[in-house]
Amino acid sequence: MTTPFEVRGKMRSGEFTLPTSGLCEDYIQANLVILPKNLAFDFLLFCQRNPKSCPVIDVTDVGSYVPHLSAPNADLRTDLPKYRVYKNGEVVDEPTDIKEYWTDDMVGFLIGCSFTFEEALIKNGIPMRHNEEGVNVPMYKTSIEAMPAGKFSGPTVVSMRPMKEKDVIRAVQVTSRFPSVHGAPIHIGNPQSIGITNINQPDFGDAVTINEGEVPVFWACGVTPQAIAMHMKPALMITHAPGHMFITDLKSEHVSVI
Amino acid sequence: MTTPFEVRGKMRSGEFTLPTSGLCEDYIQANLVILPKNLAFDFLLFCQRNPKSCPVIDVTDVGSYVPHLSAPNADLRTDLPKYRVYKNGEVVDEPTDIKEYWTDDMVGFLIGCSFTFEEALIKNGIPMRHNEEGVNVPMYKTSIEAMPAGKFSGPTVVSMRPMKEKDVIRAVQVTSRFPSVHGAPIHIGNPQSIGITNINQPDFGDAVTINEGEVPVFWACGVTPQAIAMHMKPALMITHAPGHMFITDLKSEHVSVI
Repeated sequence: MTTPFEVRGKMRSGEFTLPTSGLCEDYIQANLVILPKNLAFDFLLFCQRNPKSCPVIDVTDVGSYVPHLSAPNADLRTDLPKYRVYKNGEVVDEPTDIKEYWTDDMVGFLIGCSFTFEEALIKNGIPMRHNEEGVNVPMYKTSIEAMPAGKFSGPTVVSMRPMKEKDVIRAVQVTSRFPSVHGAPIHIGNPQSIGITNINQPDFGDAVTINEGEVPVFWACGVTPQAIAMHMKPALMITHAPGHMFITDLKSEHVSVI
Repeated sequence: MTTPFEVRGKMRSGEFTLPTSGLCEDYIQANLVILPKNLAFDFLLFCQRNPKSCPVIDVTDVGSYVPHLSAPNADLRTDLPKYRVYKNGEVVDEPTDIKEYWTDDMVGFLIGCSFTFEEALIKNGIPMRHNEEGVNVPMYKTSIEAMPAGKFSGPTVVSMRPMKEKDVIRAVQVTSRFPSVHGAPIHIGNPQSIGITNINQPDFGDAVTINEGEVPVFWACGVTPQAIAMHMKPALMITHAPGHMFITDLKSEHVSVI
């Protein structure tokens, strides 16, 4: 089996630049947010106040690009397949490494990703439509305001997975075990209730088919910081490109609470 | 029933200055740490890296003594029965309010407390020896180093509850439901394994009887920041006095993960 260390090496050399869904499947993948130190306390507080959308997996020391607790051999400047660079709330670049943008006052935040609980759902016989259709999971900005912290405020982003009615209860149980990777859903059913007007037009990712008799189930999403960045427009913020996650050395089973 | 709001009012007026064990039993009580802004990021990061000893319940905005998410009508300067003021790592005062110490650059951190899971244990038929003996729970500095963050480093503090062998497994299950108030134990059995040389001499709180056939069970403890304060000696740090907690408006059942 290919290890996270090996896969990250291929990303570092530029050999691998694709989405990471399904890679190293027993290991936790993470959303990345890089901010300067002067915004780091407010952002960490934002994560603490919004643990369902922003469950913190690891935070680097100021100026360090090494996530010591989750992947001590990694380099966050090079070890993701693709990045997004936001300046004043706009995407200005989608590079495959960010060495040219890195400065000594930066702090890297790794935030839990739904890929972890998706595997648990699949093992419980609940298929993922976006995998079946070979696309990115659909994600939507909602009317659920994130709890603000300092300069950070804006909408909560959710990911959506349609499933049979009979699977909904089991999906709640299975994902409740994993609070550090978004945990239980935050909404089941009617998209309008959380401000989603067109389920076929996601704000991030791709639309998927919802069959007759299926229920859309919504989880808080680690792309929330990107929606917040568009809202608060920091001078510089670097993230992963959607779907192009950081693969840690942590095993998924280790972060379940029971 | 007396509400947290009413009890806090009696603390604010100076009418109530005793330990809070057993008060408002459906509500979450919290450890308090107050630090100046220049240490706030490092401390929040310390909590994030040590979630078992320092599970964050709420953090105030810089300069605010109001914990908006957990008790929006409270004042952290007055609404605890007793405080401890640490200067350069030494306790210099144990006042019943801290108005004279409060400055506009301070940040208040509320950290989960074991009183919450103790109720769950009692409801499951596992009695608390320190309650039976009318004393504070025994707490010990251990050889388990907390994960450092910035200037913060030092030993993990644990609380200990003796119980019958047959109750140990259930105790693990019950407390696993509450990761935001320390969660599952971090050690079961031999105190020497975690660097405790004399179980009858706790570093905080009081010794309790361990009967023949009982097993000591150890949980990470929210007093850890006080041991850290003694270790890193910040110019000023204010905490609750051990056992004299802050009572939030949050109900315990709301923080269980399943």
